[in-house]
This record gives sequence, structure tokens and C-alpha cells, in this order.
Amino acid sequence: MKLKFANRMSYIKASEIREILKVTEQEDVISFAGGLPAPELFPIDEINQMTQIILKEAGTKALQYTTTEGYSPLRDWIAKRMNERLGTSFDKDNILITHGSQQGLDLSGKVFLDDGDIVLCESPTYLAAISAFKSYGCNFLEIPTDEKGMNMTVLEDVLSNTPKVKLIYVIPTFQNPTGKTWSLERRKKLAELSARYDIPVIEDNPYGELRFEGESLPSIKSFDKVGNILCAGSFSKIFCPGFRIGWIAGDKNIIRKYVLVKQGTDLQCNTIAQMTIAEYLKRYDIDKHIGKIVEVYKKRRDIAMECIERYFPDNIRYTYPQGGLFTWIELPEEISAREILKKCIERKIAFVPGGSFYPVEHKENTLRLNYSNMPEERIIKGLQIIGEVLQARISPSE
Amino acid sequence: MKLKFANRMSYIKASEIREILKVTEQEDVISFAGGLPAPELFPIDEINQMTQIILKEAGTKALQYTTTEGYSPLRDWIAKRMNERLGTSFDKDNILITHGSQQGLDLSGKVFLDDGDIVLCESPTYLAAISAFKSYGCNFLEIPTDEKGMNMTVLEDVLSNTPKVKLIYVIPTFQNPTGKTWSLERRKKLAELSARYDIPVIEDNPYGELRFEGESLPSIKSFDKVGNILCAGSFSKIFCPGFRIGWIAGDKNIIRKYVLVKQGTDLQCNTIAQMTIAEYLKRYDIDKHIGKIVEVYKKRRDIAMECIERYFPDNIRYTYPQGGLFTWIELPEEISAREILKKCIERKIAFVPGGSFYPVEHKENTLRLNYSNMPEERIIKGLQIIGEVLQARISPSE
Repeated sequence: MKLKFANRMSYIKASEIREILKVTEQEDVISFAGGLPAPELFPIDEINQMTQIILKEAGTKALQYTTTEGYSPLRDWIAKRMNERLGTSFDKDNILITHGSQQGLDLSGKVFLDDGDIVLCESPTYLAAISAFKSYGCNFLEIPTDEKGMNMTVLEDVLSNTPKVKLIYVIPTFQNPTGKTWSLERRKKLAELSARYDIPVIEDNPYGELRFEGESLPSIKSFDKVGNILCAGSFSKIFCPGFRIGWIAGDKNIIRKYVLVKQGTDLQCNTIAQMTIAEYLKRYDIDKHIGKIVEVYKKRRDIAMECIERYFPDNIRYTYPQGGLFTWIELPEEISAREILKKCIERKIAFVPGGSFYPVEHKENTLRLNYSNMPEERIIKGLQIIGEVLQARISPSE
Repeated sequence: MKLKFANRMSYIKASEIREILKVTEQEDVISFAGGLPAPELFPIDEINQMTQIILKEAGTKALQYTTTEGYSPLRDWIAKRMNERLGTSFDKDNILITHGSQQGLDLSGKVFLDDGDIVLCESPTYLAAISAFKSYGCNFLEIPTDEKGMNMTVLEDVLSNTPKVKLIYVIPTFQNPTGKTWSLERRKKLAELSARYDIPVIEDNPYGELRFEGESLPSIKSFDKVGNILCAGSFSKIFCPGFRIGWIAGDKNIIRKYVLVKQGTDLQCNTIAQMTIAEYLKRYDIDKHIGKIVEVYKKRRDIAMECIERYFPDNIRYTYPQGGLFTWIELPEEISAREILKKCIERKIAFVPGGSFYPVEHKENTLRLNYSNMPEERIIKGLQIIGEVLQARISPSE
């Protein structure tokens, strides 16, 4: 066989996370690797009831093709929710239902990116966003990012000097992988720069509803005066990921382009999953459900923080996240997290080394830890072991 | 707003079918436009039962993330089914679950196509395959197609003279839009040419299970000695389309590339939908279910054929399909099906004009009729009216 593949196939690589997940799935491994929500919190009985209602009352509709845009009542709910929580002013025509928020990123690539275009992103950024955009032939420029978000001075400098910039991608709340949250000031500034330089922003927000403490901040979109900013959202972390239902929201003229592109990509999302979620939202109080998730994750965050403080060497740095699923560890520069991972896997502990979260300048002394997916005793045991491996590597003579 | 979009946005157009569908959904219109299966045949109660079982026995798994490749028992079943029915020799690692067979086409574009590559297709071909491939910047060459499939002499000539050909796309059984089926000889010949010229073939087969009469033919894949041929399949027409579960099958090395690409595109398909179908396949006889669908569609095909014979003018040509969902009408060359559609819509009848099914040489004197989606009396009434409109236009003085 001597088939010729597309050029992109030379640089599309396996997702390190999904490859690690495959290993960990099969064995008795304590894994901090995934971004998995806690399955014991899925509203299984409620989903079962809602599915039965939908199938009885509207079975033929629920199992048939529907519009590319998605199920209207669900789009209505999303618009209303975003308006209440994120300071947007959407109606259902601003919303396209996507196959998880991941598809929102892929479609963004299809709508905006040509070969050789440049995407600006946080440093580090979400691994699978890099894959999604890269498949459209773009290059990346990482903008230095600190506790308050992207460095706006550098960003403005890049925007004014780099003609091929086509898109800015950010996760301003409980970022993946770092768990950090942008300040209000940086949010406003990004909206302003996006407008001034006519560069669209994808504001990805899969974790924003999972806040443990502190005050919610308005979205970057809420400061958008020209319609340049698109918001990706998802039910994966507040309901369940197995349904694969997310959305992309933005200016109606832009969303229409996304709809066109989705038609050729996969026609539409799963009909019954959309209707089941909408029925749940009608009959149950999702805030109560989210409250339960937040309570459990907060406890796990607390324990993870305590363990890191107790078991990890002093010369590491880590995020204390106010919400979401992740914390981020920076080891001394000479330590490779991949080496640490090898030693941890021998002891049946997994995490994701941070290097892959940098599209350009891989910092191999970093790693991401997920704390949402396991009961407390496993978190303690796992972090204790990672701590031991780190201590042995960082201060071997002590 | 002066955003710059990707170049592809200048030529991605709304799907004519989905736009017509939107109009017809809202009113009391008899529509031959969609490719919709008959909803009264969906196994609603069985799906309800299977969903309950899955949620009770494996709820957390069914609602959680899973592997990109898809649910193993479902991939096993698909491989076995294809081996029995289509003469392939697959196991589960030859199968990737996709978001409908449409996503199989989109991923094929992503895996194989660069800007300026050429895709060879039947003339006419499936509208949404044109959209899927076009978004990767390819051009099309239509290969003349008759009752027995693509003209192999022309195909070979093109293959030997056109260096930029990258992919061949065909629907050899009950083709969309024409309802025609390739001969055994052409199937063998395509496999042979694909191997000789190292050009991959996407063999799309969403309708093959819906045969009303005549003998089933082996797939083109069954004659593939080198691993160049990929098969797209779907549960949409034999189970239900609302689940959006299809597959792409082929050589393991190629399927691995599809998996990589799907990771960045949308991570994975809906978990519970995959498990529900697998559970149904374990507990029920899908052949019995398909038998029911075939019985109903055959009756509708018979009635549609009778009505066309009775009500349509003599100087049209049409396909007598042995299975599937569509027949194809060729009007005298000077007649535009779009004009006929306008008149029909005034009388609340819809269909899809054929021009859009030709990526290059739009033949506007053609139209596609779907007969699977309506009870008999509506088929009769609808075709009678189309017949009247055609008679008035074709022989206005009589």
C-alpha cells in the first residue's frame, strides 16, 4: 500500500492523555490523568426517567433526524443561562448545539483557519484544542500567561506585529491545564484588543459553573461590543460527558457559518440526548445538582491541596484552583515530568506530563493533576506516592 | 465587524436539502425531499427497554467518556455483520464508530485531502459528501455513471492522466440520489484500478441492507487485495438516525489515522447510544426488524413506481430501484426541476432538484424523490400533483 495521506497527517499526533487513559483503564491504577467528572454524581435515575418520558411522548421525533442548529428548547435554555451567568445577551439563534465543546473548537478551526494562519493561545493551553486547530494547518504563538491570564502587553505587541494572526483561543475560568482564572481587567482588555485588531476570540468555558469559592466573573464575551467573541460550552462537566452535548455561541452571522460547516461535518447532534437534557432542565433544578458536584469536588480539591503541601517537595509550585477539575505543578526546571511519570506508573499512579500542553515551547518540568474523579482515600494515596517519587528525584541524598 | 474567515467559507453553501426540509417541516407539505426513514418503524419500545437496562446495569459507564475508537461489543458486531454480508474479513480493530456515516466522510476528507486535490465521484453523487470533501479544499471530477455504475474506461483514463487524484468516492448499492446499483463486474474492476493506481476508495453503503428483491452483491471492499478501500456504514436507516451512530471500516493502519483525527475533532461518539444499540443487537433479531422496514418501503416503492408510470409524462426517465430510499427522475433537457419545484411548493409538494448532486456539471433537468417517509395515500397524492405540474410544463398545449 502506497497511499498518500493529507499533509496534516504528518503532524497529527496521538493525544497523550487518551493514550495514557488507555493504559490506566485496564489496570488497578490511581489516575490523575483524565479530565473525567466523578461518575457517582451522574443523575442516572433522572436521565432514565427523562428518557422514558421523551420516548413515550415524542419517540418518533427523538429518534429521527432534526435540524443542524439543534433542539430549540435546549438552545433557549443555554441562551438564558449564559445571559444570567455570563452577562451575554443571546437568544436561541446565537446558539449551535455541538458534539461536545470539542466539536465547537474543531468547527472554529474549519470556519476561521487556513494553512499557515497563526492561533494565539495561553501558555500552556488545552491539549485537544491544539489538535483541533492544528488539523487546519495553523501555527501557534504562545502568549505568556500568569496568575491573572494572558500578558496583555505582549498580546498587543504580537497583534500589532503579526499579520497572519487569525484567532485567539483562551479558557479564562479554571483553565485547563493550570486551574487558573483570569482577572476582570484582563477580560475587558482582551475584548478591547479583539475589537481593535479584528481578531476573533474563542472563549472556552467548560468548567465555569464549578466554582468552589470566590466571586464569579463576567465572561469576556460580555465586554464584546463588535461581535468578535465566540463562547464554547458543554454539559459534560455539569451533567454527563457520555451524551456529547455542548454548544458554540456568538454573533448570529458567525453562528450561521458554523451551521453551514456542521451540515457537511456530521449533519446534526444526537436528537434524543438533546431532548433528554432539555426535559431534565425543565423538570429538575440543575443548580441543586451542580451544588452537589461542587461540594464533592471542593472537598477533593481541599484534600489534594493538603496532600501536595504535605507530601511534595518544597521547591515545586502549584495552583490553588478556585474551581474546576485541575491543579498544575511546576517542578524545578531540570526535572522532567515524563521521567517522574515512568516511575509513578511502576507504582500504578498516572498523571499527564505538562509538555504537550505547550504547542511551541514544551516545558517538560510541568504536570497536570485531576482531582475530580476519585474518592478521597485514593487521592491521598496517589499524591503520597507521587510525593515520594518527587522527593527521591529532587532531593535524592536526603 | 471585519473578521476574516477561512477561504473555504467562500464556497461552502447551505445544503439545499436541509434548507428545503426547514420549509417543509413547518407546514402541511407532502415532502419527497428528505432521506428520512419512516419514523413509525423505529423500535421505540425496545430502545426504551434497552436504555433502562444499560442505565441500571452500567449507568456510570454509559454516561462517562469512553475511547475514541468506540464501544468494543458494537465494533465486534459491525465487523461480523460486514464479514457475513459484504464478504469482508474485519475484526473490531478495523472499525471506528463515527457520528453517523456523514462523519466517516468528513474524517476521510481530513485524513486524505489537501487543497487542490481531486476527488473522483459518480455523476450524480451524494450532496453532503460533496460538502464534506469540499471543505478540505478539493476539486471534483465526475465520472460518467450508468445503470451499472461508473464507466470504468473513463475512470481508468482519468486515473492514468490526472496526477492530483487523491480519492474515489462511490455509493455502489441503491445509490443516493439515483437508486442505482453497480454490477459485480464494475465492483471488481474498481478494486483493481484502486490497487493499480494507489488511490483509496470510500465505499459508502448506508442503504445496502434495504433490498426489496434481487440478489445481494459483495462489496467492492471484498475484492480489495491491498487495503485501499474504506467502507462507511450507518445505523440510521436500519435502526434510527437520531442516535447518530455510524462507522468507518478499513485497513487497521488507516483506521488508526482516522482515530487520531477523530480525537481532535470530537473525542468520541455518544457512549450510551453505542451501548444501547449493542444491547439491542444482543437481545433482539435485527434481521426481523429490517424485514419489516423492507416490507413497508417495498410497498411504497411499488406505489411510487405505479404513480410515476401513471401520472408522469412519457418523455421522462426514472430509476426502478431494487432497494433503498430514492428514485431519480430525468426530465427532458430543456426543463428545469427548480422551476417545477416552485410550482409544486405552491401546491404544498416538495422534492429536491437534482442539480446540486452534480459537483461540476449541474444537470438541472433532474430530481430526486424519496418514497420511504410517507404513508401510501400521501405518496399517491403527491406524485399525482407533481405529475400534473410536469404535464402542464412538458405538454402545455395538450
